[in-house]
Amino acid sequence: MTEAKRAATAAEMVEETRVAEKYARKLIRRLRVRVADRPGQLAAVLTAIGADGAETGEIERLSLDSTSAMLSVTIYVDNTEQLERLVGRVQAVAGATVEAVTDVVLELHRGGKLRIAARTKVRTLQDLQMIYTPGVASVCLRIHREEPEVYRKYTWVGNTVAIVTDGSAVLGLGNIGPRAALPVMEGKAVILDQLAGVGCVPIILDTQDAGEIIRTVEHLAAGFGVIMLEDIAAPKCFEIEQTLAKRLPMPVFHDDQHGTAVVILAALENACRQAKRKLGELKIVILGSGAAGGATARLLLGAGAKHIVCCDRAGAIYRGRTDRMDTYKEQLAEITNTEGVRGSLAEVMKGAEVFIGVSGKGLVSAEMVRSMAAPRIVLALANPDPEIPPREAIAAGATVALDGRTVNNALAFPGIIRGTLDSGAREITEAMKVAAARAIAAMAPEGLLLPLILDPAVHQAVAKAVAGAAGEKIKN
Amino acid sequence: MTEAKRAATAAEMVEETRVAEKYARKLIRRLRVRVADRPGQLAAVLTAIGADGAETGEIERLSLDSTSAMLSVTIYVDNTEQLERLVGRVQAVAGATVEAVTDVVLELHRGGKLRIAARTKVRTLQDLQMIYTPGVASVCLRIHREEPEVYRKYTWVGNTVAIVTDGSAVLGLGNIGPRAALPVMEGKAVILDQLAGVGCVPIILDTQDAGEIIRTVEHLAAGFGVIMLEDIAAPKCFEIEQTLAKRLPMPVFHDDQHGTAVVILAALENACRQAKRKLGELKIVILGSGAAGGATARLLLGAGAKHIVCCDRAGAIYRGRTDRMDTYKEQLAEITNTEGVRGSLAEVMKGAEVFIGVSGKGLVSAEMVRSMAAPRIVLALANPDPEIPPREAIAAGATVALDGRTVNNALAFPGIIRGTLDSGAREITEAMKVAAARAIAAMAPEGLLLPLILDPAVHQAVAKAVAGAAGEKIKN
Repeated sequence: MTEAKRAATAAEMVEETRVAEKYARKLIRRLRVRVADRPGQLAAVLTAIGADGAETGEIERLSLDSTSAMLSVTIYVDNTEQLERLVGRVQAVAGATVEAVTDVVLELHRGGKLRIAARTKVRTLQDLQMIYTPGVASVCLRIHREEPEVYRKYTWVGNTVAIVTDGSAVLGLGNIGPRAALPVMEGKAVILDQLAGVGCVPIILDTQDAGEIIRTVEHLAAGFGVIMLEDIAAPKCFEIEQTLAKRLPMPVFHDDQHGTAVVILAALENACRQAKRKLGELKIVILGSGAAGGATARLLLGAGAKHIVCCDRAGAIYRGRTDRMDTYKEQLAEITNTEGVRGSLAEVMKGAEVFIGVSGKGLVSAEMVRSMAAPRIVLALANPDPEIPPREAIAAGATVALDGRTVNNALAFPGIIRGTLDSGAREITEAMKVAAARAIAAMAPEGLLLPLILDPAVHQAVAKAVAGAAGEKIKN
Repeated sequence: MTEAKRAATAAEMVEETRVAEKYARKLIRRLRVRVADRPGQLAAVLTAIGADGAETGEIERLSLDSTSAMLSVTIYVDNTEQLERLVGRVQAVAGATVEAVTDVVLELHRGGKLRIAARTKVRTLQDLQMIYTPGVASVCLRIHREEPEVYRKYTWVGNTVAIVTDGSAVLGLGNIGPRAALPVMEGKAVILDQLAGVGCVPIILDTQDAGEIIRTVEHLAAGFGVIMLEDIAAPKCFEIEQTLAKRLPMPVFHDDQHGTAVVILAALENACRQAKRKLGELKIVILGSGAAGGATARLLLGAGAKHIVCCDRAGAIYRGRTDRMDTYKEQLAEITNTEGVRGSLAEVMKGAEVFIGVSGKGLVSAEMVRSMAAPRIVLALANPDPEIPPREAIAAGATVALDGRTVNNALAFPGIIRGTLDSGAREITEAMKVAAARAIAAMAPEGLLLPLILDPAVHQAVAKAVAGAAGEKIKN
């Protein structure tokens, strides 16, 4: 996409985001309605639908005979009660019958969201003999003679990653277990395919024990180019990631930590540029001791930040704190909060320029934002509900306020995985993550802090930056 | 395919099989040759290629300029020495230069043979919100509320299987390890996709310990509809299969055992029909104590066979034998060889009507075949080289003699897996396997014992028969 085109699309994106946000929390249903074929029927049905605030999307005519027409009407409602009332009203329209109500989201998931397809077509027996026995033996034997490059080039491992979860911390849903997590893993795989051309296999593990997870992943990792960890609860996820990164020869990437950190850094670098400030001079408060907090602190430090205080629900994390600490918080206390700040979140936020929340709903008040120092950059990223709604933060004086819908990991992980596979890197270093963040920041259209998620050029740029930074140090 | 069409294709198939068999053991290479653009050049090059028996396949002209043409010539050679001589001769042709020699089989494997693709396209942010957060949460929560049918219907598990190997007994190559086995697993997945529309994920395990394999598969199985085991050495494979079948809620299928058994039964039923004999009255000798032998004995018994003697290299396996026995051979001795026959393979084969070999190259002599009773049905299935070449068995009086190229598991496993997934069965019973065998037998064109592997109707018929037999008993 050219600069001009990207600028033009920015307006569209803002509009599309507005629409997407408007409907994000709605239930989307499709009504199949039979209506008598006479004037005014459609209007009567639409009036019935809209009577207590439901909205109408696409309307299609599925069939038409001499007396009636079959319509498909997409509707957006707030909850099932509103839906029931709506259906009752449509049924009450003379000449109209609701024949079916389907769940649009559920239908989109029918049969699963992924398909494993052959890249080569078997047309003849000779084709079969080349891709299977006896022909395949020559490829097997070359790999057996310890030719790792042959393995990467002539099997799927050069372009295929595993996404592993135990379902212990899924989105904002909590510990819903591995089976219920599978649709999320499939969704992530769809994104990796579409935005980066990376094949991604969901592996859901029927154990939530860190040791068993580590052992299982060690056994199955050889068939994949990168191991992605996903939606595994903290602090277990740190132990799993660190142990696997040490033991496995391929990169291990926990998106909940590092993908989040990368997009935060990208947004923050552009916010700094907008405010004409340097990252190194800003006081930054990070709230949240889950997967994302520590990784964000580390990445910001790597990118030049100097004044970071991490907080959990007990307040500032500092060296020597004894209340509610664990190994991982102790490691954080070693590298952040050099001035040994203590106190509650409200106390720590006073005078800070940047607030980053990766914690829980509503933990930040307008008063706390007002107590910050200009330019008051607020990234309230708790999912599904932010620490403070961006609108309220802006009202309280923030010049930048974003939530998790805008600061979206899908800006980072596709390009990071693509670039890692392309480079053949054995680990994803801090330098590669910083490079990813800067590539994302650079692709933001004029006037926005972050680029368009569905713009392929963004993910290509990230992949190129990440591959280029493999084996390099961070350039500040 | 209609009956008439199938009969017509049979002739093609025989021809195609002949061609495929002719080239199966050849090295296939593509030469890029630049030749001067003057008359007689191509002929000179082809003469050089053919001088010591190499054969030529496709010839393409890739480019042409004022003085020379670039040709691509596919050649079939027996070994690399013959290839080197050939290239030397072509180089020696005045005006010809060999610019590249590529390995056609290896090229076919470049980038791997599988691709994981999204079944749904993300066009807008709203699409993204439906397949990923927040929309996906509604599907997750329905699965979490313990709705196993939702799980099967709205994730990939209803159409996706895992193919698990430790690489301990790959094709005829032996213990080449998991990485070198991956191209074989990918090949099998290609076949499952193309012939049965089943998604198949290769899982290669970096452990060859039975306990670790069992534990790992238990942890990861929930994400798949069927667990296929593949190329795991006997007798470990029996323990793994039996333990997993007991512990897992989904079917476990070891193709090396049961796929082989099914195709053998199919061939045998048609051979019996041709010879106008009943399976139950024939004396059957099975040679081989690997994965396939025991499963074949069991399946034949289930289908009505009554006189089976299993042999290993020590001769007949009988109740009370102490030499080279294990749990699995003892189980076999309990259900076969009711007359307690003892003796070497040669002794046991005397007077038997059927020989089935799933053992090793050259273990059966022409003399042994001659000692059999009519109709002398010989299935010599050792891979890659049979117990006795079919031609020699026929010369020694066999009315039917087939090897592993014809009795191919790919006739069975695609339809078995498809039918199992379609039925939602929790195990693959003997009745389902017998039904598969009979469906395969019924699809053989007039004059052949087995049907065309690449005929989609075969796999549809097998799937239908298998799904129909789920929950049924064997019908004899």
